[in-house]
Amino acid sequence: MRTSIATVCLSGTLEEKMQACARAGFDGIEIFEQDLIVSPRSPAEIRRMAAELGLSLDLYQPFRDFEGVSEELLEENLYRAEEKFRLMASLGMDLMLVCSNVATATIDDDDLAASQLRRLGDLAARYGVRIAYEALAWGTFVNDFEHAMRIVDMTAHPNIGTCLDSFHILSRGWDPAGIEKIPAEKIFFVQLADAPEISMDILSWSRHYRVFPGEGAWELDRFMGHLVRSGYNGPVSLEIFNDVFRQADEERTAVDAMRSLIWLAERTSVHLQETDPGATYPMRLATLPEVAEPTGFNFAEVKAKDSAQVQALLRQLGFAFRGRHRTKDVQLWVQGQARIVINEQQARGMEPTISALGFDVEDPLAAASRALQLKAVQVPRQSQANEEVLQAVKAPDSTEVFLCQATPDGTAAWTDEFATASPASAGDDLITRIDHVNLAQPWQHFDESVLFYESTLALAPRPSTEVPSPVGLVRSQVMRTEHGGVRLALNIAPLVMEQPGPSAASAYPQHIALACTDVVTLARRAVEAGLEFLKIPANYYADLQARFRLDPELLAALQELNLLYDRDDQGEFIHFYTATVGRLFFEVVERRDRYEGYGAPNAPVRLAAQYRLTKDG
Amino acid sequence: MRTSIATVCLSGTLEEKMQACARAGFDGIEIFEQDLIVSPRSPAEIRRMAAELGLSLDLYQPFRDFEGVSEELLEENLYRAEEKFRLMASLGMDLMLVCSNVATATIDDDDLAASQLRRLGDLAARYGVRIAYEALAWGTFVNDFEHAMRIVDMTAHPNIGTCLDSFHILSRGWDPAGIEKIPAEKIFFVQLADAPEISMDILSWSRHYRVFPGEGAWELDRFMGHLVRSGYNGPVSLEIFNDVFRQADEERTAVDAMRSLIWLAERTSVHLQETDPGATYPMRLATLPEVAEPTGFNFAEVKAKDSAQVQALLRQLGFAFRGRHRTKDVQLWVQGQARIVINEQQARGMEPTISALGFDVEDPLAAASRALQLKAVQVPRQSQANEEVLQAVKAPDSTEVFLCQATPDGTAAWTDEFATASPASAGDDLITRIDHVNLAQPWQHFDESVLFYESTLALAPRPSTEVPSPVGLVRSQVMRTEHGGVRLALNIAPLVMEQPGPSAASAYPQHIALACTDVVTLARRAVEAGLEFLKIPANYYADLQARFRLDPELLAALQELNLLYDRDDQGEFIHFYTATVGRLFFEVVERRDRYEGYGAPNAPVRLAAQYRLTKDG
Repeated sequence: MRTSIATVCLSGTLEEKMQACARAGFDGIEIFEQDLIVSPRSPAEIRRMAAELGLSLDLYQPFRDFEGVSEELLEENLYRAEEKFRLMASLGMDLMLVCSNVATATIDDDDLAASQLRRLGDLAARYGVRIAYEALAWGTFVNDFEHAMRIVDMTAHPNIGTCLDSFHILSRGWDPAGIEKIPAEKIFFVQLADAPEISMDILSWSRHYRVFPGEGAWELDRFMGHLVRSGYNGPVSLEIFNDVFRQADEERTAVDAMRSLIWLAERTSVHLQETDPGATYPMRLATLPEVAEPTGFNFAEVKAKDSAQVQALLRQLGFAFRGRHRTKDVQLWVQGQARIVINEQQARGMEPTISALGFDVEDPLAAASRALQLKAVQVPRQSQANEEVLQAVKAPDSTEVFLCQATPDGTAAWTDEFATASPASAGDDLITRIDHVNLAQPWQHFDESVLFYESTLALAPRPSTEVPSPVGLVRSQVMRTEHGGVRLALNIAPLVMEQPGPSAASAYPQHIALACTDVVTLARRAVEAGLEFLKIPANYYADLQARFRLDPELLAALQELNLLYDRDDQGEFIHFYTATVGRLFFEVVERRDRYEGYGAPNAPVRLAAQYRLTKDG
Repeated sequence: MRTSIATVCLSGTLEEKMQACARAGFDGIEIFEQDLIVSPRSPAEIRRMAAELGLSLDLYQPFRDFEGVSEELLEENLYRAEEKFRLMASLGMDLMLVCSNVATATIDDDDLAASQLRRLGDLAARYGVRIAYEALAWGTFVNDFEHAMRIVDMTAHPNIGTCLDSFHILSRGWDPAGIEKIPAEKIFFVQLADAPEISMDILSWSRHYRVFPGEGAWELDRFMGHLVRSGYNGPVSLEIFNDVFRQADEERTAVDAMRSLIWLAERTSVHLQETDPGATYPMRLATLPEVAEPTGFNFAEVKAKDSAQVQALLRQLGFAFRGRHRTKDVQLWVQGQARIVINEQQARGMEPTISALGFDVEDPLAAASRALQLKAVQVPRQSQANEEVLQAVKAPDSTEVFLCQATPDGTAAWTDEFATASPASAGDDLITRIDHVNLAQPWQHFDESVLFYESTLALAPRPSTEVPSPVGLVRSQVMRTEHGGVRLALNIAPLVMEQPGPSAASAYPQHIALACTDVVTLARRAVEAGLEFLKIPANYYADLQARFRLDPELLAALQELNLLYDRDDQGEFIHFYTATVGRLFFEVVERRDRYEGYGAPNAPVRLAAQYRLTKDG
């Protein structure tokens, strides 16, 4: 599959965009006209630069508002087109995108549109240019890819074909199966975009909210399946208008974009295997090492210059200090299968923060190979000869992701590298494992993170939610395995929390939630051990009572112990939060019956209590 | 008119919100339940605090999903309601909002809904509570205020009335004229929100994009007219769910909110005078000193620690150094009626930036009085006995707004305070006046700025636009007078431009655009005088030629002089930009015929060229 990307997807100057695309491994680019117009580089210089970077210049776009017009306006449009054909000759380009008319079309007549496009085709042929005619979703008379294709057919001109764009097709709800009926040689170009399900006018949706394949809600593997079955074998390009990508670092965005195409090629290959086993097609799709979803968290690592407070918290929660690493300044704390690694290496000036997560996977080498093929960056590891070799890559938010060997009994071989300290816990391990982890995401990298965890670890995004805090809405996106062994909540904090300045709001903290078989008993022990709980206001319990008519004894216990409660059709949820240390706190949760949530109605209570502490502190 | 506001409009803790509302002058507040639940203050403490602040507690809200349910669920809902009535008793509150059912309604039967609400009314009466039943725009069976009112009528219960919310009425396109038919004593409460015209699902629109009256697109003076004619005389409250207000400083937001109600009361009063002259109503509406829109810019002030570069720019543009102020370290530069004041006072560490704007108004004292009544903050001015007393207030972005005496010949009396220097200009004043000014706005204060300029200076917002820059979209909102004497462009830069850090993007610059009668001649003179122009790429001129088929001589002149060009049905626009000095640059514009725009198609070219300079520099 030849990969391409429109320059409009990225931030920066045209040179910066081109360099980023080349480094990320794209075969070619679409030149978005605006990027050329604002550039001081001449067309010849751009052509030379592309050649040096090994990028083909696949498509010049957009040429707007051509067809369905009066003869007088057509003359003007042909003049305008010829100027652009000359420019394309200097660029060494031979394919131009013509969008269906949205502004100046006055005549709704396919014969006329076809005859006008035929004249454009004759002119284009003189410059060796081909025209890819595309139905915009909001085109005045032509807004359906099959309608555009009928007009292309009517031109019967070798230089006139069509461009298919998944956004314009799927946003209108057109059935992409019709793609299979288009002769492959008439599909001159293909553009892909994914999009979240938002109910808004299509133009705004298209201009601001497109995302890379896998970051939205559409089944682009099915779309690609239709395309592959049509026999198409040209470039598959990304055209993404996105307010955030426009602001993000272009090198990262280009890698994110390439990851989406690599992942989509694999998904498409799997889809075709399922629907047409054994069939072959002109387009070849690279596959990746298949990996099963991880079965659980192997460990979480907390990094801090001074971890004394974190150690105290863990002890109060009943964790045992399992020992110190033989060669590194790293501690291991354990309770049940919940393992917390405390790392004081290279942590100058660092407040406690979640620095790494280990995931139990069936085949760590295959998982790492898959991640690296998906453009993840490897974490350099120095291992002694007698130590476990661990595979690790960096997530977009810089968290290190370790791919660890899953074992039937949930143990981890690398723990043998830690000298065994004397047992120090209560001993009955009320905490059994890590239930979920909540990671704060920079707003610029949120979509990238979703795709990263979906493509490399096979975590699936759930519908996102928004939680009010005293300084704004926190957006929360849960990524999880089907069986719930791994649950990650990716949260974007309100902007004011990220901005330095006189605002009292501190950076948004992250947390590790620990699964517990008896949270009331654990909380009582933690009180005795001197744990500092996040204080929950009395008004919360009054409301709880109004909503759930709880047993008075349970309500009293909840209030006494600063426990929070939720209930749904599936079961009950009781949990508490510790005080925050640096950028980290812990949560202890007990899931009763089949409760699958995270106590979302209680999140505003937590955020408000934490906000008060930052104001008082 | 009694003023009230829902606590959900503001950021912070409940105490912070209440203090901000009291300081801004609100009569009362709505307690948004969530704010109480997350607060460690007891209901009795909140009640005491409100009394001390002089705030009435007007409405407890929301109580959801009550009516249209099975008998079993009704019992639960009555239990839940009684708990809340008890809570309201502790708060000393007597009015509760009940929203039409969106989640649990299963029976579409007005008789049933009315009988269930009647039972709620009986229960409420025992606690001295009244129920304001409101139709949510997305209510399952009840989503129209007239439908809700029919059900209220059917209850025939003294403790059951309605709550009207402009959002739920206008977002659905219901005709608010029906309000006049509702008996005033059955309107228990009124909530106001404005909103921008966005085409999206109503729930998202409502939860994220509401704005204060005057900051959106709706004719709330007409809405209020219907309300006043109904005979209603209770609180008029603001209930605004807005992602930005949630993050902004609560004191500022509360002032912004109060300004919107003061302004709306005046607009309503004017509207009623026009439609029913002489009529009187129970609700009394305070009016403000009426002011005509300003006729022009009196001056613009640039503040800088070191203004040498600004002075050089002005000289190169043909400005004359008019003199130094008799008592202050302030210079005056003049060309035609364009006056630029350069202020080096109290400018430690400041790069050149626009610090003040003077507006020509008919009656400066009345205009200042109006602004102060609209909660604008006065700028403290120290004037000597023999100096002009100038009225000035601070705009939300901290720009000082001077209200200056308009004169028939466009002169300004305060210029006499400047010693006259020898003339130094070319002498024929190709620049005649300030055409427009472009001010960068912090994203938190954008809506506040729009309302400020609309309410205090009678500038009207035009449809906003978005301009792509290499690091994101710039949102631009023009505010102008009908006759174009004053035009202000309020721009929000992409977030990355505001964030400190390793990003190469500098702070978004502001600019002063100067109207010119012959921009080609002026540009030639400026070249000779050594002015540094913003360089426009050759590719731009090739595109200009394709789009406009310009006269070759004109095109050559444009390209030689780095001039930009635009044309529409009304006329032509030729302009150029100077290099940026600090946070400021100048633009010189020539409007031919009746061109009313700002060369928007050229803005991306400017932003890209400026971006390159920040990268190179």
